[in-house]
Amino acid sequence: MDEVLISRAITESYMKNFIDSMVLDVAVVGAGPAGLVAAFYLAKKGVKVAVFERKLSVGGGMWGGGMMFNQIVVQEAGKEILDEFGVDCTHYKEGYYLADAIEAVSTITSKAIKAGARIFNLISVEDVVIRDKSRIHGIVINWSAVELSNLHVDPMTIASDVVIDATGHAAEVARIIEKKVGTDALVVRGERSMWAEAGELAVVENTQEVYPGFIIAGMAANAVIGSPRMGPVFGGMLLSGRKAAEIADEVKKQ
Amino acid sequence: MDEVLISRAITESYMKNFIDSMVLDVAVVGAGPAGLVAAFYLAKKGVKVAVFERKLSVGGGMWGGGMMFNQIVVQEAGKEILDEFGVDCTHYKEGYYLADAIEAVSTITSKAIKAGARIFNLISVEDVVIRDKSRIHGIVINWSAVELSNLHVDPMTIASDVVIDATGHAAEVARIIEKKVGTDALVVRGERSMWAEAGELAVVENTQEVYPGFIIAGMAANAVIGSPRMGPVFGGMLLSGRKAAEIADEVKKQ
Amino acid sequence: MDEVLISRAITESYMKNFIDSMVLDVAVVGAGPAGLVAAFYLAKKGVKVAVFERKLSVGGGMWGGGMMFNQIVVQEAGKEILDEFGVDCTHYKEGYYLADAIEAVSTITSKAIKAGARIFNLISVEDVVIRDKSRIHGIVINWSAVELSNLHVDPMTIASDVVIDATGHAAEVARIIEKKVGTDALVVRGERSMWAEAGELAVVENTQEVYPGFIIAGMAANAVIGSPRMGPVFGGMLLSGRKAAEIADEVKKQ
Amino acid sequence: MDEVLISRAITESYMKNFIDSMVLDVAVVGAGPAGLVAAFYLAKKGVKVAVFERKLSVGGGMWGGGMMFNQIVVQEAGKEILDEFGVDCTHYKEGYYLADAIEAVSTITSKAIKAGARIFNLISVEDVVIRDKSRIHGIVINWSAVELSNLHVDPMTIASDVVIDATGHAAEVARIIEKKVGTDALVVRGERSMWAEAGELAVVENTQEVYPGFIIAGMAANAVIGSPRMGPVFGGMLLSGRKAAEIADEVKKQ
Amino acid sequence: MDEVLISRAITESYMKNFIDSMVLDVAVVGAGPAGLVAAFYLAKKGVKVAVFERKLSVGGGMWGGGMMFNQIVVQEAGKEILDEFGVDCTHYKEGYYLADAIEAVSTITSKAIKAGARIFNLISVEDVVIRDKSRIHGIVINWSAVELSNLHVDPMTIASDVVIDATGHAAEVARIIEKKVGTDALVVRGERSMWAEAGELAVVENTQEVYPGFIIAGMAANAVIGSPRMGPVFGGMLLSGRKAAEIADEVKKQ
Amino acid sequence: MDEVLISRAITESYMKNFIDSMVLDVAVVGAGPAGLVAAFYLAKKGVKVAVFERKLSVGGGMWGGGMMFNQIVVQEAGKEILDEFGVDCTHYKEGYYLADAIEAVSTITSKAIKAGARIFNLISVEDVVIRDKSRIHGIVINWSAVELSNLHVDPMTIASDVVIDATGHAAEVARIIEKKVGTDALVVRGERSMWAEAGELAVVENTQEVYPGFIIAGMAANAVIGSPRMGPVFGGMLLSGRKAAEIADEVKKQ
Amino acid sequence: MDEVLISRAITESYMKNFIDSMVLDVAVVGAGPAGLVAAFYLAKKGVKVAVFERKLSVGGGMWGGGMMFNQIVVQEAGKEILDEFGVDCTHYKEGYYLADAIEAVSTITSKAIKAGARIFNLISVEDVVIRDKSRIHGIVINWSAVELSNLHVDPMTIASDVVIDATGHAAEVARIIEKKVGTDALVVRGERSMWAEAGELAVVENTQEVYPGFIIAGMAANAVIGSPRMGPVFGGMLLSGRKAAEIADEVKKQ
Amino acid sequence: MDEVLISRAITESYMKNFIDSMVLDVAVVGAGPAGLVAAFYLAKKGVKVAVFERKLSVGGGMWGGGMMFNQIVVQEAGKEILDEFGVDCTHYKEGYYLADAIEAVSTITSKAIKAGARIFNLISVEDVVIRDKSRIHGIVINWSAVELSNLHVDPMTIASDVVIDATGHAAEVARIIEKKVGTDALVVRGERSMWAEAGELAVVENTQEVYPGFIIAGMAANAVIGSPRMGPVFGGMLLSGRKAAEIADEVKKQ
Repeated sequence: MDEVLISRAITESYMKNFIDSMVLDVAVVGAGPAGLVAAFYLAKKGVKVAVFERKLSVGGGMWGGGMMFNQIVVQEAGKEILDEFGVDCTHYKEGYYLADAIEAVSTITSKAIKAGARIFNLISVEDVVIRDKSRIHGIVINWSAVELSNLHVDPMTIASDVVIDATGHAAEVARIIEKKVGTDALVVRGERSMWAEAGELAVVENTQEVYPGFIIAGMAANAVIGSPRMGPVFGGMLLSGRKAAEIADEVKKQ
Repeated sequence: MDEVLISRAITESYMKNFIDSMVLDVAVVGAGPAGLVAAFYLAKKGVKVAVFERKLSVGGGMWGGGMMFNQIVVQEAGKEILDEFGVDCTHYKEGYYLADAIEAVSTITSKAIKAGARIFNLISVEDVVIRDKSRIHGIVINWSAVELSNLHVDPMTIASDVVIDATGHAAEVARIIEKKVGTDALVVRGERSMWAEAGELAVVENTQEVYPGFIIAGMAANAVIGSPRMGPVFGGMLLSGRKAAEIADEVKKQ
Repeated sequence: MDEVLISRAITESYMKNFIDSMVLDVAVVGAGPAGLVAAFYLAKKGVKVAVFERKLSVGGGMWGGGMMFNQIVVQEAGKEILDEFGVDCTHYKEGYYLADAIEAVSTITSKAIKAGARIFNLISVEDVVIRDKSRIHGIVINWSAVELSNLHVDPMTIASDVVIDATGHAAEVARIIEKKVGTDALVVRGERSMWAEAGELAVVENTQEVYPGFIIAGMAANAVIGSPRMGPVFGGMLLSGRKAAEIADEVKKQ
Repeated sequence: MDEVLISRAITESYMKNFIDSMVLDVAVVGAGPAGLVAAFYLAKKGVKVAVFERKLSVGGGMWGGGMMFNQIVVQEAGKEILDEFGVDCTHYKEGYYLADAIEAVSTITSKAIKAGARIFNLISVEDVVIRDKSRIHGIVINWSAVELSNLHVDPMTIASDVVIDATGHAAEVARIIEKKVGTDALVVRGERSMWAEAGELAVVENTQEVYPGFIIAGMAANAVIGSPRMGPVFGGMLLSGRKAAEIADEVKKQ
Repeated sequence: MDEVLISRAITESYMKNFIDSMVLDVAVVGAGPAGLVAAFYLAKKGVKVAVFERKLSVGGGMWGGGMMFNQIVVQEAGKEILDEFGVDCTHYKEGYYLADAIEAVSTITSKAIKAGARIFNLISVEDVVIRDKSRIHGIVINWSAVELSNLHVDPMTIASDVVIDATGHAAEVARIIEKKVGTDALVVRGERSMWAEAGELAVVENTQEVYPGFIIAGMAANAVIGSPRMGPVFGGMLLSGRKAAEIADEVKKQ
Repeated sequence: MDEVLISRAITESYMKNFIDSMVLDVAVVGAGPAGLVAAFYLAKKGVKVAVFERKLSVGGGMWGGGMMFNQIVVQEAGKEILDEFGVDCTHYKEGYYLADAIEAVSTITSKAIKAGARIFNLISVEDVVIRDKSRIHGIVINWSAVELSNLHVDPMTIASDVVIDATGHAAEVARIIEKKVGTDALVVRGERSMWAEAGELAVVENTQEVYPGFIIAGMAANAVIGSPRMGPVFGGMLLSGRKAAEIADEVKKQ
Repeated sequence: MDEVLISRAITESYMKNFIDSMVLDVAVVGAGPAGLVAAFYLAKKGVKVAVFERKLSVGGGMWGGGMMFNQIVVQEAGKEILDEFGVDCTHYKEGYYLADAIEAVSTITSKAIKAGARIFNLISVEDVVIRDKSRIHGIVINWSAVELSNLHVDPMTIASDVVIDATGHAAEVARIIEKKVGTDALVVRGERSMWAEAGELAVVENTQEVYPGFIIAGMAANAVIGSPRMGPVFGGMLLSGRKAAEIADEVKKQ
Repeated sequence: MDEVLISRAITESYMKNFIDSMVLDVAVVGAGPAGLVAAFYLAKKGVKVAVFERKLSVGGGMWGGGMMFNQIVVQEAGKEILDEFGVDCTHYKEGYYLADAIEAVSTITSKAIKAGARIFNLISVEDVVIRDKSRIHGIVINWSAVELSNLHVDPMTIASDVVIDATGHAAEVARIIEKKVGTDALVVRGERSMWAEAGELAVVENTQEVYPGFIIAGMAANAVIGSPRMGPVFGGMLLSGRKAAEIADEVKKQ
């Protein structure tokens, strides 16, 4: 029966990917712009990387531009990354460029997968694996539908040398470590008020390994360090993603 | 101030697009696979087309594959369209091919925009424009956040020579016409039980102009005509989108 | 890493069962008493059978006895089935026996699995497979967490020679057939008011094949036929389950 | 097409106002009585002022009078302001006057706009702009429908020399500063229990600049300073609004 | 104690108005533009009229303009009414004028009260008074907070010679009559799809007495008769309100 | 241990009452004024009667008077019944009397129990017992907490010669009979619009046996027959309760 | 018109009571057993007392007995109070008596009103009146429907020499004082685990004036002081209510 | 009448069990794997034991395996316990065994009841009995439907020499003691991040009496002590249950 053949094809293919991804070089949590860009650069280097996204769709806060006007802004440095992905930009003024938000999300996603990154959507990260309070060893995942349905079902585990928290303002993985390992390991200071210029610089600077095997990127970096937010300007996010990829590649090799 | 420059850039750019799109050749309702494919082929022909999507993200039911296993299946004819978009397919068996659901959604979206289609997300279609019960003249839109928040706020209007209903199972635009113009204009019979093979054939066949200026495509076509559903096999959807584009181009010229 | 070994063991084992169960002799929908008993007798005969249950736990309405007083009642004929499962009964009076509701649910479930029946919990049946309006060919399933979370995700398919609707008062599969195939195929009349004696007799009598390949059992049988309900007396349910197994075995051989 | 002409007129007009209001002298947050009165007096002086209101309608807690009995009370000093707006008052006794709550709200609103104040309803203030922890530079806004719908969409920015918090008991902007800049900048003590006489005096006295560029007015002033509430007597609110306008005009000029 | 004096003043004043309004010449249901305009013209003629509004604030769908862009449009005839109220209009093009939505709502409300109309907000109309199926004699009201809180509390009654249904799309009073008196008395056909020009003409024409003592106005008129909707153009609404006032004055005199 | 002694006392006492009440002469459904008065008069005659009430508290719609003003009105005939219960009344005018709503509810309840009626609160009636479509034999009950919690738990049964539906506007038992026995047995026409005088007369007249063993009383009587509602005047309710008691006593004896 | 006469009678009568109760000797918050008993004894002494209850019905946690088995237990001392009210008790064993929960609630309520206490149901206490942090002067009330509906409406004030907190476990008024006056005025320690014997003794002992003009009674007393809870034994509650009345009478005279 | 006989049989039987269980040797809170295994071993020794479970069904987090893949894993030591219960295991690799999750839950439950343990489902434990802060004497229970329905109904009491907290991650009883007796009695540290191997060892080691008469078992033990979680490997849980039974038997004898 055709229907069964289709069901079997999908199940076998997904499970092959899923089981193969149970041991990773780098696990990226959150498929917003910073996470997708990090995954793209890691995959291009041949690193075994997968992105875990809670929602049905990827893209995080980029789809809606500013106040649902689906355009985004980048400055010179960010534009170079968009150029690399092939996202069209138009010059606005004074070094600012505009891009279509939906084109940006979809093109970055498409290119990240083509580069070899796997994306698992509908997956929540509800904990991490840590031994002897000394290092992160992986993430503990569940279907986000389990969470949404308030079902009492156990999670499973992905082993990973490096974990990148690209969950945005919420800094979800960092908060798990803060709560479960302790504030001597990590403190999430919370993002500061809006200051676009300072926020753009800080997000790249803050992208770093803050606990052995654990890297913060994108808005999660500013949230952990306590730097300003920047609104619908996305250059810093893209640059942070690229920097996170570089750091992860280093950490992984250690 | 940088922040104001960014806000102004986004607002001006979006509003220019929005006002320019108030008069269209073709309005596609629903940014699932059928709607995106239709928009792609129309844009490639130089037709002025925009897609209106209720959700924050595009892609409809394709992101989750079958039962959250994010893979999709197509047969030979559907694979040709995926090839045209540049979505990777692997052969499974007996003429069935597998593709990554997220790669498929994101790549099709990216290519549709690059071809010239505009996508307006977060927009609900709450009514149509019809004069003298004789022809559809456009759609009546609102922010879907208005709907979700249960706010009492008036909609606005997009004029369009042709409207394509690509809203999936719900056949939302068709149901509006059935309710507001009357069952002598259109009847939504509802999709039938699963039968993949028959459903795949029917969805292409059912893609047609069912009311002057109004075309049904994708699962909305099977829902209106009363044909079987087909599950996570997407070839028929893609072919329906392409056929809808051809019909719309014809209708528009009349 | 231990955690990965555990995750892999679970995934591989479940997926082997799941894929193997994509083609069944008999699919039972609903793991209440009637469905579990039917599955037990079918499995004992070597029939390939699986039960699909929407909830996290099996047992349906039996856990709560009457008004949360977790005891159940059976008469002579029902007691024989409980004896066969090894559920303790104590005589109350006038041919009525009492059993512990939780012992009954858990023991029947345990024995059904040991007899060879597979149970898939957390699975909703959202449609059936039907060709040419002539026969049921299987069921269309999804994670019930998808339904509960209101996610837009496609289902998959289980092929089955026979489908037993043991979903209780709701008669869920029968209602799908009524709605999607039509009232000429099947009409769900709805259960009548309480009349324990008549309901107990009717539920066994009503257990039958009402559409090619489709059998109704337990309260679903009374709901389809329009017979009385009977409250927390469970003998008829058990007998109906056994009869459904016999009919299914016959139908399957045709 | 008429419908498009109407849509275009509305969009162009609103966007012109919106973009023009991206740089203000004074941004008032909250369109309750204190905020509207402040905006009125500022506009009358030719100051460029706009009011941002979260709800669809303006007026805050004034519509419902006391316990849904839609009358309000003012004393001598407050009556003078109502007289200036042209709201009818009737003497009750001992220096207390009654006014119709709906007449008061609508008349004050009408006059504020006619004086030149712009009101943006359906807008939430979700953050402020602050540089070097030294001064407020503006507000960060979003559609409140985005907030209500729980959508993940970025905000935009309004630059303003002065910001007046007229958000009532919640003291929303003050709480943002307390949380994001720190308690060394500002502490919200919370309003005290009811004491009408003391509250009426305090609300005027408490109206002041509490952080560079940031003024508190109306109940937000009593909430920040920790003074008593006063119930449905509105004279202090009106006087506070007028005083806030005077202070804002001073601060702006610095 | 001041607080008690304030409470007593409000209670006494409201209750005097409330009890006095228990016998009216005209009861207007719904304080949107049509209802407010009708109340204004009736009050100006010295007719005893009160408006009953379910929400805390008046104004209905006018506050949000089109798609939350708070501007409204009127044509020549509507502008004359706005001029009478003193609402500023600017010419757009081709006989279309723009006004600020908030200025329009607040000014019309203010003027209606000053003309002598009473407005009772937070009041739901849950039924009508009808004797011998021959004529409407009044409305049955309750606090809308009772409805919202799902409390089981009896309503009270307002006697009125004439009742105007100005509840907008919902045509709430008309639907009560249709349901409780019967479809031989009245049928609510439901508004048709958008057609601004036809809708504007129809709304004035449809304003009429459709059952003894019962007049429909504004969008409720188009909803009852089955005419097109018109979107954020408000001239027809204002003209309908004025016509309803004229008809009500006539009916009342009979 | 004291706590266990207390728990045991309560459990034993309740269960003795509960089991004893499984066979009744008359079961009254709904503990509003009509049901309580009926129970009072039946108990006074020595009839074995119990009242089943869905809510935690008894009293139905009487507590809130009209629009939360907790006073009720009765006319001459109703006052006589209040006098019999010992509820204080004060004369208003023209044959109308006022009573305190809370005094009325509590006194009637107190007296009904003292007269010998049992009240079971927190009990929902979810069905009836009917044999051969010829006569009602009892009611099918469950904890209303089961219903509210959406738990799947079976009900139990109360045998009763007569059942009185005193469930108010909802006419809950009548609607069960209409749905489960059929419209040839009973049709619920729904209450008509407000007409106090006609409603007061009708509610007494409509109090009758409408199906063998089944009596309607109070607003349920007007809802079944299709008579007007009357608002917060309660004389008819009390008289209806007394008449229902008389009819029930007759029916029971047959 | 009768309906208007009824509405007017109710409104006038309620408002007379309401306005008259704006100045009280004693305001009791919460109409559970302790509050009702306190009101009864105060009214009997001729003290001007009113009870304010958030819910539609009075009685608090007494209706449901233990675990919905609607019986309550009292010991010797509590029985004496029930005797005074005329509530029937039956001896269980060892000095424990049983009473019908519904009879107890309704009879106590009935007698409290007959003794002269007024009860205002559907009223929430959202704050207190306090001057110079030195004494409670009254309570700040609102319709609880306003709270439930989340409406932004101002409260009004009741002046009272003494306020009794009889709000049960929540100790609502005490918590307001703790939060708004400060922990130097009052600390709510929270009730301790179950210990029936100790709890019964403590509740009487804890009944006291804990802040000038403010008395705690019933479970609120144990919650403030930090004493054990006692479950469905109600003697201590009744005794506490009587003691609160005595203290209030003393305090009031000062 | 049959229906009454059935209702009476169930009520009498349940109440006999319930009253008999008001005095226990051991009360187990939570019917997950640890609680069920503890009850099994205690019952086998002739100890009077009952399990109290909040949900309708028993089994806790075991039904769903890992991520809804209903298989569980145990190691050598855990397998021995499964063997004793008769649950089938298959060897996976390296000392790890797989079992069907549903077979495991149902078989353990069935065997625990047959061994003599009583299970009360739908019961919440909302407090404990403690005298003089020196020892736990029992638990305070209520219907969980009361909790879910937010009803204000008093609980009742079960006396028990020993209480075992087997409520999983929530450690519900321990948290009650921490809150109500104080942190000097007990501190709940919260479970640590995932580390399967360490968690498996810790859960057995942590199973202990932490307060006089109070034992922690299963995940509740790791949550109280602050040890790692282990995911869907259940050996430690089973061993913990057995150890808890041994300790409880010792404690009880003291």
